[in-house]
Amino acid sequence: MQKKTDFEKAIKTRYPEQVVIAIAKDKSGRANPVTLGWSMLASSDPPLMAIAVYKGHYSIGAIRRSKCFTISYPSSKMSDAALFFGSHSGRDCDKFSEFKKCKTSPAKVIDSVLLDDGVANFECRLLWEKKAGDHIIFVGQVVASYVNIKKTKRLFTIGAGHKMGFFKKS
Amino acid sequence: MQKKTDFEKAIKTRYPEQVVIAIAKDKSGRANPVTLGWSMLASSDPPLMAIAVYKGHYSIGAIRRSKCFTISYPSSKMSDAALFFGSHSGRDCDKFSEFKKCKTSPAKVIDSVLLDDGVANFECRLLWEKKAGDHIIFVGQVVASYVNIKKTKRLFTIGAGHKMGFFKKS
Repeated sequence: MQKKTDFEKAIKTRYPEQVVIAIAKDKSGRANPVTLGWSMLASSDPPLMAIAVYKGHYSIGAIRRSKCFTISYPSSKMSDAALFFGSHSGRDCDKFSEFKKCKTSPAKVIDSVLLDDGVANFECRLLWEKKAGDHIIFVGQVVASYVNIKKTKRLFTIGAGHKMGFFKKS
Repeated sequence: MQKKTDFEKAIKTRYPEQVVIAIAKDKSGRANPVTLGWSMLASSDPPLMAIAVYKGHYSIGAIRRSKCFTISYPSSKMSDAALFFGSHSGRDCDKFSEFKKCKTSPAKVIDSVLLDDGVANFECRLLWEKKAGDHIIFVGQVVASYVNIKKTKRLFTIGAGHKMGFFKKS
Protein backbone atom coordinates (compact mmCIF):
# COMPACT_ATOMS: atom_id res chain seq x y z
CA MET A 1 0.00 0.00 0.00
CA GLN A 2 1.40 3.37 -1.04
CA LYS A 3 1.18 6.62 0.89
CA LYS A 4 1.74 9.95 -0.86
CA THR A 5 4.60 11.86 0.73
CA ASP A 6 7.28 14.48 0.06
CA PHE A 7 9.94 13.67 -2.49
CA GLU A 8 12.65 14.28 0.13
CA LYS A 9 11.17 11.55 2.30
CA ALA A 10 10.40 9.05 -0.45
CA ILE A 11 13.81 9.36 -2.06
CA LYS A 12 15.51 8.19 1.13
CA THR A 13 14.23 4.71 0.27
CA ARG A 14 16.74 4.64 -2.59
CA TYR A 15 19.51 3.56 -0.21
CA PRO A 16 21.69 1.51 -0.39
CA GLU A 17 23.08 3.46 -3.34
CA GLN A 18 26.24 2.57 -5.22
CA VAL A 19 29.11 5.01 -5.05
CA VAL A 20 31.47 5.91 -7.89
CA ILE A 21 34.44 8.24 -7.98
CA ALA A 22 34.80 10.28 -11.18
CA ILE A 23 38.24 11.71 -11.96
CA ALA A 24 39.20 14.38 -14.49
CA LYS A 25 42.27 16.59 -14.87
CA ASP A 26 41.83 20.33 -14.41
CA LYS A 27 43.54 23.09 -16.41
CA SER A 28 46.72 22.73 -14.37
CA GLY A 29 46.83 19.02 -15.17
CA ARG A 30 45.89 17.99 -11.64
CA ALA A 31 43.66 14.91 -11.39
CA ASN A 32 40.55 15.82 -9.41
CA PRO A 33 38.36 13.06 -7.94
CA VAL A 34 34.72 13.58 -6.95
CA THR A 35 32.45 11.08 -5.22
CA LEU A 36 29.09 10.57 -6.89
CA GLY A 37 26.00 8.64 -5.95
CA TRP A 38 24.30 9.27 -9.27
CA SER A 39 25.69 7.22 -12.12
CA MET A 40 24.43 4.52 -14.45
CA LEU A 41 25.32 2.49 -17.45
CA ALA A 42 23.75 4.05 -20.53
CA SER A 43 24.54 1.69 -23.44
CA SER A 44 25.99 -1.75 -24.11
CA ASP A 45 27.21 -1.27 -27.68
CA PRO A 46 29.11 0.98 -27.60
CA PRO A 47 29.68 0.82 -23.83
CA LEU A 48 28.59 4.16 -22.38
CA MET A 49 28.40 5.42 -18.81
CA ALA A 50 26.43 8.38 -17.47
CA ILE A 51 27.11 10.51 -14.40
CA ALA A 52 25.14 13.41 -12.93
CA VAL A 53 27.43 16.07 -11.43
CA TYR A 54 26.21 19.10 -9.44
CA LYS A 55 26.48 22.21 -11.64
CA GLY A 56 28.60 24.03 -9.05
CA HIS A 57 31.21 21.29 -8.69
CA TYR A 58 34.81 21.96 -9.70
CA SER A 59 34.72 18.70 -11.68
CA ILE A 60 32.38 20.22 -14.28
CA GLY A 61 35.17 22.42 -15.69
CA ALA A 62 37.73 19.63 -15.47
CA ILE A 63 35.55 17.19 -17.46
CA ARG A 64 34.71 19.84 -20.08
CA ARG A 65 38.34 20.85 -20.45
CA SER A 66 39.84 17.38 -20.65
CA LYS A 67 36.88 15.86 -22.55
CA CYS A 68 37.37 12.62 -20.64
CA PHE A 69 37.00 11.13 -17.18
CA THR A 70 37.65 7.96 -15.21
CA ILE A 71 34.80 6.18 -13.47
CA SER A 72 36.18 4.21 -10.55
CA TYR A 73 34.20 1.88 -8.31
CA PRO A 74 35.63 2.39 -4.81
CA SER A 75 35.94 -0.73 -2.69
CA SER A 76 34.22 -1.26 0.66
CA LYS A 77 37.54 -0.35 2.31
CA MET A 78 37.64 3.08 0.65
CA SER A 79 34.86 4.84 2.57
CA ASP A 80 37.33 7.40 4.02
CA ALA A 81 38.52 8.32 0.53
CA ALA A 82 34.96 8.50 -0.79
CA LEU A 83 33.94 10.79 2.06
CA PHE A 84 37.01 12.99 1.65
CA PHE A 85 36.62 13.36 -2.13
CA GLY A 86 32.92 14.06 -1.71
CA SER A 87 33.31 16.73 0.95
CA HIS A 88 36.24 18.76 -0.40
CA SER A 89 36.51 20.85 -3.54
CA GLY A 90 39.32 20.82 -6.08
CA ARG A 91 39.01 24.63 -6.02
CA ASP A 92 40.49 24.64 -2.51
CA CYS A 93 42.86 21.69 -2.43
CA ASP A 94 44.67 18.96 -4.33
CA LYS A 95 42.57 16.06 -3.09
CA PHE A 96 44.97 13.27 -4.05
CA SER A 97 47.91 15.12 -2.43
CA GLU A 98 45.96 15.68 0.77
CA PHE A 99 44.52 12.17 0.96
CA LYS A 100 47.72 10.24 0.35
CA LYS A 101 46.33 6.83 1.23
CA CYS A 102 44.46 6.76 -2.07
CA LYS A 103 47.03 5.65 -4.62
CA THR A 104 46.62 6.28 -8.34
CA SER A 105 48.21 5.12 -11.58
CA PRO A 106 48.12 6.86 -14.97
CA ALA A 107 45.27 5.94 -17.28
CA LYS A 108 46.45 4.31 -20.50
CA VAL A 109 44.15 5.70 -23.19
CA ILE A 110 42.82 8.97 -21.79
CA ASP A 111 44.64 11.71 -19.85
CA SER A 112 43.47 10.81 -16.35
CA VAL A 113 44.32 8.42 -13.52
CA LEU A 114 42.99 5.14 -12.11
CA LEU A 115 42.40 4.27 -8.45
CA ASP A 116 44.78 1.42 -7.62
CA ASP A 117 42.56 -0.03 -4.88
CA GLY A 118 39.21 0.37 -6.66
CA VAL A 119 37.00 -2.58 -7.55
CA ALA A 120 37.19 -1.50 -11.20
CA ASN A 121 38.15 1.52 -13.31
CA PHE A 122 36.74 2.68 -16.64
CA GLU A 123 38.41 5.24 -18.87
CA CYS A 124 35.71 7.28 -20.61
CA ARG A 125 35.85 9.75 -23.50
CA LEU A 126 33.22 12.45 -23.12
CA LEU A 127 30.52 11.96 -25.76
CA TRP A 128 27.95 14.57 -24.74
CA GLU A 129 26.60 16.54 -21.81
CA LYS A 130 23.15 17.92 -21.09
CA LYS A 131 21.74 20.04 -18.29
CA ALA A 132 19.33 18.31 -15.91
CA GLY A 133 18.05 20.75 -13.28
CA ASP A 134 20.85 21.54 -10.84
CA HIS A 135 23.13 18.86 -12.29
CA ILE A 136 24.87 18.19 -15.61
CA ILE A 137 24.61 14.70 -17.10
CA PHE A 138 27.85 13.63 -18.78
CA VAL A 139 27.86 10.56 -21.02
CA GLY A 140 31.19 8.97 -21.82
CA GLN A 141 32.29 6.08 -23.99
CA VAL A 142 34.37 3.47 -22.19
CA VAL A 143 37.68 3.09 -24.02
CA ALA A 144 39.58 0.99 -21.45
CA SER A 145 38.49 -1.15 -18.49
CA TYR A 146 40.31 -2.52 -15.46
CA VAL A 147 39.53 -4.79 -12.54
CA ASN A 148 41.33 -5.21 -9.25
CA ILE A 149 43.44 -8.36 -9.19
CA LYS A 150 42.28 -8.88 -5.58
CA LYS A 151 38.72 -9.82 -4.64
CA THR A 152 36.94 -6.63 -3.54
CA LYS A 153 33.42 -5.45 -2.76
CA ARG A 154 31.76 -2.26 -3.96
CA LEU A 155 31.12 0.60 -1.58
CA PHE A 156 27.54 1.75 -0.98
CA THR A 157 25.91 4.66 0.77
CA ILE A 158 23.54 2.82 3.07
CA GLY A 159 21.64 5.78 4.48
CA ALA A 160 21.30 9.54 4.74
CA GLY A 161 24.25 11.46 6.19
CA HIS A 162 26.80 9.56 4.07
CA LYS A 163 26.60 6.33 6.02
CA MET A 164 28.73 3.82 4.15
CA GLY A 165 28.62 0.05 3.94
CA PHE A 166 28.79 -2.94 1.64
CA PHE A 167 26.48 -5.66 0.38
CA LYS A 168 26.14 -9.00 2.10
CA LYS A 169 24.48 -11.71 0.07
CA SER A 170 20.86 -12.38 1.02
CA MET B 1 46.36 -3.25 -8.28
CA GLN B 2 44.44 -2.91 -11.54
CA LYS B 3 44.56 -5.30 -14.48
CA LYS B 4 43.38 -4.18 -17.93
CA THR B 5 40.56 -6.37 -19.19
CA ASP B 6 37.53 -6.44 -21.48
CA PHE B 7 34.65 -4.10 -20.69
CA GLU B 8 32.28 -7.08 -20.56
CA LYS B 9 34.34 -8.62 -17.77
CA ALA B 10 35.02 -5.44 -15.81
CA ILE B 11 31.41 -4.31 -15.88
CA LYS B 12 30.30 -7.45 -14.05
CA THR B 13 31.84 -5.89 -10.94
CA ARG B 14 28.99 -3.38 -10.93
CA TYR B 15 26.71 -5.86 -9.16
CA PRO B 16 24.79 -5.62 -6.88
CA GLU B 17 22.79 -3.18 -9.02
CA GLN B 18 19.53 -1.58 -7.98
CA VAL B 19 16.45 -2.47 -9.97
CA VAL B 20 13.65 -0.09 -10.94
CA ILE B 21 10.43 -0.72 -12.84
CA ALA B 22 9.42 2.05 -15.24
CA ILE B 23 5.77 2.19 -16.29
CA ALA B 24 4.16 4.14 -19.14
CA LYS B 25 0.84 3.81 -20.94
CA ASP B 26 0.89 2.81 -24.60
CA LYS B 27 -1.37 4.13 -27.35
CA SER B 28 -4.19 1.83 -26.29
CA GLY B 29 -3.98 3.19 -22.74
CA ARG B 30 -2.45 0.00 -21.36
CA ALA B 31 0.12 0.49 -18.60
CA ASN B 32 3.35 -1.23 -19.63
CA PRO B 33 6.03 -1.99 -17.03
CA VAL B 34 9.68 -2.61 -17.88
CA THR B 35 12.44 -3.65 -15.50
CA LEU B 36 15.58 -1.54 -15.69
CA GLY B 37 18.97 -1.80 -14.08
CA TRP B 38 20.11 1.56 -15.41
CA SER B 39 18.61 4.51 -13.62
CA MET B 40 19.85 7.37 -11.45
CA LEU B 41 18.80 10.54 -9.78
CA ALA B 42 19.74 13.50 -11.95
CA SER B 43 18.84 16.61 -9.94
CA SER B 44 17.73 17.65 -6.46
CA ASP B 45 15.99 20.94 -7.27
CA PRO B 46 13.88 20.29 -9.21
CA PRO B 47 13.85 16.54 -8.45
CA LEU B 48 14.72 14.71 -11.66
CA MET B 49 15.24 11.04 -12.42
CA ALA B 50 17.02 9.49 -15.41
CA ILE B 51 16.53 6.05 -16.95
CA ALA B 52 18.33 4.39 -19.86
CA VAL B 53 15.96 2.24 -21.95
CA TYR B 54 17.08 -0.05 -24.79
CA LYS B 55 16.16 1.58 -28.11
CA GLY B 56 14.20 -1.50 -29.26
CA HIS B 57 11.99 -1.72 -26.17
CA TYR B 58 8.24 -1.25 -26.48
CA SER B 59 8.44 1.23 -23.57
CA ILE B 60 10.21 3.80 -25.75
CA GLY B 61 7.03 4.51 -27.73
CA ALA B 62 4.85 4.45 -24.61
CA ILE B 63 7.02 7.02 -22.82
CA ARG B 64 7.20 9.27 -25.90
CA ARG B 65 3.46 9.08 -26.45
CA SER B 66 2.35 9.64 -22.87
CA LYS B 67 5.20 12.07 -22.04
CA CYS B 68 5.33 10.67 -18.52
CA PHE B 69 6.34 7.55 -16.63
CA THR B 70 6.33 6.04 -13.15
CA ILE B 71 9.58 4.95 -11.54
CA SER B 72 8.84 2.22 -9.01
CA TYR B 73 11.36 0.64 -6.68
CA PRO B 74 10.36 -3.05 -6.49
CA SER B 75 10.72 -4.66 -3.08
CA SER B 76 12.92 -7.66 -2.32
CA LYS B 77 9.77 -9.81 -2.55
CA MET B 78 9.07 -8.74 -6.12
CA SER B 79 11.84 -10.57 -7.96
CA ASP B 80 9.30 -12.67 -9.91
CA ALA B 81 7.55 -9.54 -11.15
CA ALA B 82 10.86 -7.86 -12.02
CA LEU B 83 12.00 -10.92 -13.97
CA PHE B 84 8.64 -11.20 -15.77
CA PHE B 85 8.49 -7.52 -16.72
CA GLY B 86 12.09 -7.61 -17.85
CA SER B 87 11.76 -10.70 -20.02
CA HIS B 88 8.44 -10.02 -21.81
CA SER B 89 7.52 -7.31 -24.28
CA GLY B 90 4.42 -5.14 -24.24
CA ARG B 91 4.32 -5.76 -28.00
CA ASP B 92 3.31 -9.38 -27.32
CA CYS B 93 1.33 -9.26 -24.10
CA ASP B 94 -0.39 -7.18 -21.44
CA LYS B 95 2.18 -7.69 -18.71
CA PHE B 96 0.02 -6.59 -15.77
CA SER B 97 -2.86 -8.81 -16.96
CA GLU B 98 -0.57 -11.82 -17.33
CA PHE B 99 1.27 -11.28 -14.05
CA LYS B 100 -1.74 -10.74 -11.81
CA LYS B 101 0.17 -10.92 -8.54
CA CYS B 102 1.55 -7.45 -9.18
CA LYS B 103 -1.20 -5.07 -8.11
CA THR B 104 -1.38 -1.47 -9.30
CA SER B 105 -3.24 1.71 -8.42
CA PRO B 106 -3.80 4.75 -10.61
CA ALA B 107 -1.21 7.50 -10.43
CA LYS B 108 -2.61 10.80 -9.14
CA VAL B 109 -0.88 13.48 -11.19
CA ILE B 110 0.25 11.74 -14.38
CA ASP B 111 -1.62 9.20 -16.54
CA SER B 112 0.13 6.04 -15.32
CA VAL B 113 -0.06 3.54 -12.45
CA LEU B 114 1.83 2.82 -9.22
CA LEU B 115 3.01 -0.55 -7.92
CA ASP B 116 1.11 -1.19 -4.67
CA ASP B 117 3.83 -3.39 -3.18
CA GLY B 118 6.83 -1.32 -4.29
CA VAL B 119 9.23 0.27 -1.82
CA ALA B 120 8.42 3.67 -3.36
CA ASN B 121 6.84 5.13 -6.50
CA PHE B 122 7.65 8.37 -8.29
CA GLU B 123 5.40 9.98 -10.89
CA CYS B 124 7.57 11.67 -13.51
CA ARG B 125 6.78 14.09 -16.33
CA LEU B 126 9.10 13.61 -19.29
CA LEU B 127 11.46 16.57 -19.54
CA TRP B 128 13.82 15.46 -22.28
CA GLU B 129 15.32 12.43 -23.98
CA LYS B 130 18.65 11.90 -25.70
CA LYS B 131 20.17 8.99 -27.58
CA ALA B 132 23.06 7.20 -25.88
CA GLY B 133 24.38 4.39 -28.06
CA ASP B 134 21.88 1.54 -28.13
CA HIS B 135 19.75 3.14 -25.39
CA ILE B 136 17.67 6.30 -24.97
CA ILE B 137 18.13 8.33 -21.79
CA PHE B 138 14.85 9.78 -20.55
CA VAL B 139 14.89 12.46 -17.86
CA GLY B 140 11.68 13.11 -15.96
CA GLN B 141 10.65 15.56 -13.28
CA VAL B 142 9.14 13.97 -10.18
CA VAL B 143 5.68 15.45 -9.61
CA ALA B 144 4.40 13.04 -6.95
CA SER B 145 6.13 10.60 -4.55
CA TYR B 146 4.91 7.62 -2.56
CA VAL B 147 6.33 5.21 0.00
CA ASN B 148 5.05 1.84 1.13
CA ILE B 149 3.36 2.03 4.51
CA LYS B 150 5.05 -1.29 5.35
CA LYS B 151 8.79 -1.64 5.92
CA THR B 152 10.31 -3.02 2.71
CA LYS B 153 13.73 -3.56 1.20
CA ARG B 154 14.83 -2.68 -2.34
CA LEU B 155 15.46 -5.39 -4.88
CA PHE B 156 18.92 -5.75 -6.40
CA THR B 157 20.42 -7.73 -9.24
CA ILE B 158 23.28 -9.42 -7.42
CA GLY B 159 24.99 -11.06 -10.38
CA ALA B 160 24.95 -11.85 -14.09
CA GLY B 161 22.02 -13.92 -15.37
CA HIS B 162 19.44 -11.83 -13.47
CA LYS B 163 20.28 -13.23 -10.05
CA MET B 164 18.23 -11.24 -7.57
CA GLY B 165 18.72 -10.43 -3.89
CA PHE B 166 18.62 -7.71 -1.29
CA PHE B 167 21.03 -5.78 0.89
CA LYS B 168 21.96 -6.91 4.37
CA LYS B 169 23.66 -4.33 6.51
CA SER B 170 27.39 -4.77 6.80
